[in-house]
Amino acid sequence: MHIRVIVPVLDSDELVGKAEKEYRSFAGDGVTISAVPLQRGTSSIECGFDSTLAAPEVMRLAKEAEADGVDACTIACFTDPGLVGARELVSIPIVGEGEASLHMAAMLSTRFTVVITEKPFFSLIRRTVSHYGLSASLASVRSADASVMDLNESHLEHIIAECVDSVERDGAEAFVMGCTGTGFDMALTIEEALKERFGVYVPVIDPGKVALHFARAMVATGLSHSKLAYPKPAFARNEYRFA
Amino acid sequence: MHIRVIVPVLDSDELVGKAEKEYRSFAGDGVTISAVPLQRGTSSIECGFDSTLAAPEVMRLAKEAEADGVDACTIACFTDPGLVGARELVSIPIVGEGEASLHMAAMLSTRFTVVITEKPFFSLIRRTVSHYGLSASLASVRSADASVMDLNESHLEHIIAECVDSVERDGAEAFVMGCTGTGFDMALTIEEALKERFGVYVPVIDPGKVALHFARAMVATGLSHSKLAYPKPAFARNEYRFA
Amino acid sequence: MHIRVIVPVLDSDELVGKAEKEYRSFAGDGVTISAVPLQRGTSSIECGFDSTLAAPEVMRLAKEAEADGVDACTIACFTDPGLVGARELVSIPIVGEGEASLHMAAMLSTRFTVVITEKPFFSLIRRTVSHYGLSASLASVRSADASVMDLNESHLEHIIAECVDSVERDGAEAFVMGCTGTGFDMALTIEEALKERFGVYVPVIDPGKVALHFARAMVATGLSHSKLAYPKPAFARNEYRFA
Amino acid sequence: MHIRVIVPVLDSDELVGKAEKEYRSFAGDGVTISAVPLQRGTSSIECGFDSTLAAPEVMRLAKEAEADGVDACTIACFTDPGLVGARELVSIPIVGEGEASLHMAAMLSTRFTVVITEKPFFSLIRRTVSHYGLSASLASVRSADASVMDLNESHLEHIIAECVDSVERDGAEAFVMGCTGTGFDMALTIEEALKERFGVYVPVIDPGKVALHFARAMVATGLSHSKLAYPKPAFARNEYRFA
Amino acid sequence: MHIRVIVPVLDSDELVGKAEKEYRSFAGDGVTISAVPLQRGTSSIECGFDSTLAAPEVMRLAKEAEADGVDACTIACFTDPGLVGARELVSIPIVGEGEASLHMAAMLSTRFTVVITEKPFFSLIRRTVSHYGLSASLASVRSADASVMDLNESHLEHIIAECVDSVERDGAEAFVMGCTGTGFDMALTIEEALKERFGVYVPVIDPGKVALHFARAMVATGLSHSKLAYPKPAFARNEYRFA
Amino acid sequence: MHIRVIVPVLDSDELVGKAEKEYRSFAGDGVTISAVPLQRGTSSIECGFDSTLAAPEVMRLAKEAEADGVDACTIACFTDPGLVGARELVSIPIVGEGEASLHMAAMLSTRFTVVITEKPFFSLIRRTVSHYGLSASLASVRSADASVMDLNESHLEHIIAECVDSVERDGAEAFVMGCTGTGFDMALTIEEALKERFGVYVPVIDPGKVALHFARAMVATGLSHSKLAYPKPAFARNEYRFA
Repeated sequence: MHIRVIVPVLDSDELVGKAEKEYRSFAGDGVTISAVPLQRGTSSIECGFDSTLAAPEVMRLAKEAEADGVDACTIACFTDPGLVGARELVSIPIVGEGEASLHMAAMLSTRFTVVITEKPFFSLIRRTVSHYGLSASLASVRSADASVMDLNESHLEHIIAECVDSVERDGAEAFVMGCTGTGFDMALTIEEALKERFGVYVPVIDPGKVALHFARAMVATGLSHSKLAYPKPAFARNEYRFA
Repeated sequence: MHIRVIVPVLDSDELVGKAEKEYRSFAGDGVTISAVPLQRGTSSIECGFDSTLAAPEVMRLAKEAEADGVDACTIACFTDPGLVGARELVSIPIVGEGEASLHMAAMLSTRFTVVITEKPFFSLIRRTVSHYGLSASLASVRSADASVMDLNESHLEHIIAECVDSVERDGAEAFVMGCTGTGFDMALTIEEALKERFGVYVPVIDPGKVALHFARAMVATGLSHSKLAYPKPAFARNEYRFA
Repeated sequence: MHIRVIVPVLDSDELVGKAEKEYRSFAGDGVTISAVPLQRGTSSIECGFDSTLAAPEVMRLAKEAEADGVDACTIACFTDPGLVGARELVSIPIVGEGEASLHMAAMLSTRFTVVITEKPFFSLIRRTVSHYGLSASLASVRSADASVMDLNESHLEHIIAECVDSVERDGAEAFVMGCTGTGFDMALTIEEALKERFGVYVPVIDPGKVALHFARAMVATGLSHSKLAYPKPAFARNEYRFA
Repeated sequence: MHIRVIVPVLDSDELVGKAEKEYRSFAGDGVTISAVPLQRGTSSIECGFDSTLAAPEVMRLAKEAEADGVDACTIACFTDPGLVGARELVSIPIVGEGEASLHMAAMLSTRFTVVITEKPFFSLIRRTVSHYGLSASLASVRSADASVMDLNESHLEHIIAECVDSVERDGAEAFVMGCTGTGFDMALTIEEALKERFGVYVPVIDPGKVALHFARAMVATGLSHSKLAYPKPAFARNEYRFA
Repeated sequence: MHIRVIVPVLDSDELVGKAEKEYRSFAGDGVTISAVPLQRGTSSIECGFDSTLAAPEVMRLAKEAEADGVDACTIACFTDPGLVGARELVSIPIVGEGEASLHMAAMLSTRFTVVITEKPFFSLIRRTVSHYGLSASLASVRSADASVMDLNESHLEHIIAECVDSVERDGAEAFVMGCTGTGFDMALTIEEALKERFGVYVPVIDPGKVALHFARAMVATGLSHSKLAYPKPAFARNEYRFA
Repeated sequence: MHIRVIVPVLDSDELVGKAEKEYRSFAGDGVTISAVPLQRGTSSIECGFDSTLAAPEVMRLAKEAEADGVDACTIACFTDPGLVGARELVSIPIVGEGEASLHMAAMLSTRFTVVITEKPFFSLIRRTVSHYGLSASLASVRSADASVMDLNESHLEHIIAECVDSVERDGAEAFVMGCTGTGFDMALTIEEALKERFGVYVPVIDPGKVALHFARAMVATGLSHSKLAYPKPAFARNEYRFA
C-alpha cells in the first residue's frame, strides 16, 4: 500500500525529508510513504490566507498522486487545505489531518481541546471544528503562544500548563495538537505529563499519525469518499486557467 | 461610495461588463461600481474545485481593491471563494453573496430553499449553509437541472415547478437563487409566479443584490469584519510564493 | 425612501425627538426618518414584561406606518417587541434591532458578546439570541450594571473592562450593544478603546444603525418578509377587541 | 390546590364555562379549577398577531391569580402568550400548554408531530418548538385544514389521515394537538384510530390536560420558575401605562 | 394509583425502606408507593459500569410491576438505567429520574447546572443530558466531591459554594441534584441558602420527587410512551438466556 | 496485534466461527483475530431490550480480553451494547461498530442513510446516531423489512430499491449497513448496484470492517479512550453482585 503525504508548504528539502522519515517510522509494515511539498504557497500555514493559497496545489498533487498509482493521500495540515476540491478530482481516499483527528477525538472522549500555535488563529480552528459538525464536543482552543516556525521544546512547559488548565476549567478529556508542525514526540511528552498530573491516561492526538492510519483503514476496507458528495468537476464544458 | 464586485471567473469582457451594468442598475445614487474578473480560475464556478481554484485570485483582488481606495468588495459567487483569506488580508468589508443572502433569507422567513444549477452540487450548498450555522433553517436544496453556462429562460418553468413543490413538500417560505449566474430578472419572474400560485408574497432572493446592499450598509454604519476573527497574515515571518 | 422608527416606550418628546435626530444623522441621503412612541407601555424596556406590554402598540404602529405610505419600519429595542405580529399585519419590511444586529454580528465574527444593562436580563437576551438560531456564536452576555435610564458615560470604564475581559476569557471577537438606549457614540468610544487595547479593529455594533440600514437594504432590493412565514391574520372571521 | 386556567381569548360564557367543566373533569380529587377569559384580545388565537394581542391580559390575569391565592396557572393556548412576562410578574408556577405538551412529547417519543388548524400557521408552530429547544425531535407539522372556530368532528377523518401519513412518511411516533381548541375527546378518538391502524399505542397529547397536571406536579413538588431566569420587573423605577 | 419505585441498587432493607418512606411522604393522597431493589447490580450507581450492570434487573422489575397491576414505575437513578429496554417490555409509563428532572429544569429556567457526587462522572452526566437533547441548556456540571455512600450534611457547605459559583460564573438559573442519593431535604436546604444569597427563588430540583409526580401526571392524563418509539421485543422468534 | 471481536449474542458455534473467519479475511497481515459470544443475552440483537441484556456480558468479556493480553476489542453490533461501561473497566481500545461506522460515514459524505432490518427499530437507530452527535448528517433510516435471522440475499432487491430511493428523496450520499448481520458481501453487492444505477461510487459501509480497522489504527497510533471520560469504577468501595 502506497500513501502519499501532501505537505502543503513550500519546498524545503529538510522539512519534507523529515516528514517522510517520521511518517515512515509509524506507518507499519507493508506501507510505502512518499511526501511532496508545494510549488506555490507559503513556508508555513498559520491562517486562512495561507491555507487558501495552498489549496490549488494540494488539488494538483492529489491528481498527480492518483496518476502515480498511489492508494491514498493525507494532507499534512490541521486546516485541511484543498480537501473538498481534491476529493472532487480523484477517487482515491484523501484524508485531512483536521477531519481525521477531530473524529478520533470525538470517539475517544466527550469533550476535547485543540492546541494551536497562537491565539489569533482560534477563530480559524473553531471554523474548522464547526465545519465537521463537532463543535458540541469542543471544550476549548488553547495556544502554545509561539509561531509554527519557532515552536520547540522550550514551549512544552507552557503547553502542558495550558492542557492542565483546560482539563480543570474547560472539562477537556482529550487533546488534539492542531499545530501539526509540533512534531510527533511532543504529543507523547504531553501525554506523559498529563498522566503524571492526573493519574490517568489522557489521549494527546497527533493528527499526522491518525490521518495516516485512517487512510490505511480506508484502503484496507475498500472505502473512499462518496462521489455523490464530491462530484467530478465539469472539465469538458468549462475553461480552466492555472497560471 | 465605491464598491468593487469581484467576479470570480475567468476574464470575459462580455460577462464582467454585463455584471457591472446590472450591479449599477440597482446600486442606487452615490455608489460607484467596478467589476473585476480573475486571471486564473475557471469560466464558471460549479463545484468545490472551481471555487478553490478561484480563491487565491479573490484574495489578491481584495488586496488590490483596498489599495485602490475602494470602500468595500463583494464576491459574486454563492460559494464565497476566498472570503476568509480576503478578510484576513484587508480591513475594508468583504461581503460574500452566499453569506449575505443566507442571512437575509433567515431574517425574512423561518425556512428557505436554495435553488442551484445541478443536483451534483447539493452537497456543496449544504456545506455552505452549514458553514454559516444556518442549516436548521434550510428547507431543502433544489436544482434547475442546467449548468451555469446553459441556464436560460427556457428553464424557468422547471425552476418554478421545483419552487412550488418545495413550498408544498419541504415547507419552504423563501428562496435563495444559489446559482448567481441566473441573473437578476429571473428572481423577479419566479417571485411573480409564486405570488400568482400561492396568492401571497414569497421572497426570491438574488444574492448579488443583497451582497451589494449589505456592503453598502456596512460602509454606512462604519462596520467591518473583526480583526480578532480574521487576523492579518504573518507576512514578515513567512515566505510566500504565488507563481 | 421613508423609514419609520417605532420607539417602543411611552411618549417622551425629548426621547423620541432625540432618537429621530440621531437616526437622521446616519441615515444618508434620500432617506426620510420619522420616529413614533407608544401610547401604552413602559418608559423603558428592560425585561420580558415591558417588551410584552409594548408589543400590541408596535403592531398598531406598523399598520399605521403602512397606511401612511412608509417604506419600512424598524423597532428600536433589542428584544424586538411585536416583530412577528407586526410582520403578519403588513407587507412592508419590519426590522427588529435585535434580529438585525445579531445577524450582522454573525457576519462580522465567529463569536460575539452582547452587552446589556443589568445581569437579571441575561436570560432574556439568551432567549432572544436563541430565537434567531444564533446561540452557537454567542460568546457571552455581559452587563453595564446600570439601568437603561441611569446608563451614562460614567459607566463606560466598567463596560470597556467587561468587553476586554470578554475577549480574553470568552473569546469574543465582536460586540453588540444590546442596551440600545446606550446611544450611538458609546459604541464608537468602546470600539476605540478596544482598538487601543488589542491593537486591532473589533466591531462594536449599534443595533439602531444596523436595523436602519438593513431596512434600507430591503427596500432597495425589493425584499420583504415572506407572507408564508408571516400570514395575514384572519380579521374577517375573528372578533378583535383592543380596548 | 387551586389551579386557574387563563383562557386567552375574549369573554364568551359558553367557551369559558365549557373549558372550566372539561378541566374539572380530569383534574382529579383535591384540585379546584377556575377559568378566566380576556377583556381584550381576539375570539380565537390563530396567529402571532392574536397571541401578541392576548399577552398583556395574560400577564394581568396571572398577577390577579396570585393575588387571589391561586396555587398555579395554566395558559390555555399552544403559543403560550405572555408566558415569559407572566413568570416575571409572579412567583406561582405558570404553565404554558405549548411548553408542557412539547416536553411531554419529547419524553414519550423520539420524534413527534404537531397537528394544528391550518397550514399558514406552520411557521408559528415551528418557532414555538424551536423556542423550547426541541426542534430536533419535531417530525413535522400537519394541519386539520379548518379554523379553530370551524373545527369539529367532521374533520376527524382528515386529521387521522394526516397522522397516519405522518407516521409513515415523517417517522412520527407521537402527536401533539397544537390546536388546543380541538377538545379533549378528539385526542382520544385519534389515539384509538391510530391504535387500530398500526396495532400499537401511539400517544396523542392534549396540551390542556398535560399543562394542568404539570402545574399540579409543580405545586406538589414545591417547584416554580427560577427568578434568576424570570426576574421581577422594575416597577419602582419605571412608568407604566396600560390603557 | 399505585406507583412502583425501582431502586436500582443491591438489596439493603434499610435503603429501600427509607426510600419507600420518603416517596410516600410527598406522593400525595390516593397514591400507593412500593419500592423494590435489585438482586444483581452494585450497592450504589456512580458510573456507566454500575448503570449498565443494573439495567437488566430494572427491565425485569418493570415487567414484574406491570404483571402486579402497578400503574407506573420510576427508576430511582439519574442515569436512567434500563429505561429504553423497560419501555419496550411494558405498556405502563416508566419514568427515569434523569429524563424527568432535566425536562423540569428546562421548563423552569433557560440554563441549569447538574450537581453530582464526584468529578470523574462529569462525562457520564454530560452524555445523559445530551441523550435527552438538552445540552444547549446545560450551564455546567458541578461536584460535591464525595461518593454517593459518603455524602452527608457535612458536604452541604461545599455544595452550596459550588452552586453559588455556578450562578456567578456559568449563568446557572436552576439546579438538578444529579446525585439522587443526596436525599430530599438537602435540595430544600440548598434552595434556602441560594435564596438567602441571591435574594430570589432559585429552584433546586430533586429528581425523585419530579419523577414520581410526572409518573402521576402520565397516569392521570392516560399517556404513556409510544410503542412506535419503544416497540415490543420479538420474544417469539428470539432465544433469550438470563442466567 | 491481537484484536478480539465480542459478538454480543448467545453462543452458536456456527455464528461465532463464521464471524471469526470473515473478520480474519479482511484483517490484513500481522493481526490475530479471536471472536467470543455471550453466555447470557439473546440469539440476535434487534431492539433496546436485547442490547441492554447483552451489555453486562460485553463488559465482562472486555475485562477478560484485557487480562488475556489482547490489544483491542470490537463490539459486533450497531447499537454498541456495553461500550461505555467496558471502556470504564479497561485501558485497551474498545471500538463499537455503530460509533466507528457513523464517524466513517461522516468523513466520506455530508449525509448518510442507515439501513436496518425492520421499521420498528428506526427509533433505536436515531437514538444511536444522536448519541454520537451526528444527527445533522443523518439523511434517513431505511429498512430491509426482514429480521436479522431471516435476512438473506432474497431481500437484496428491496434493500437496493430503498437505497436508490434514499439517494433520490433523502439526499443520501453514503450508506451504513446498520444490520451488521447482513454480512460483508451484501455491502459490496449494494455498492455495485448503486454504482450501476448512479454512474458514480457511493460508499456502502460495513460496520464490522470499519470497527476492526479503527481498532487497528488506535493500536498503531498508541491511542485509546480517555480515562477522564471513562473513569475506572470504584470497585474498592462498592459491593458488586453479578449472579
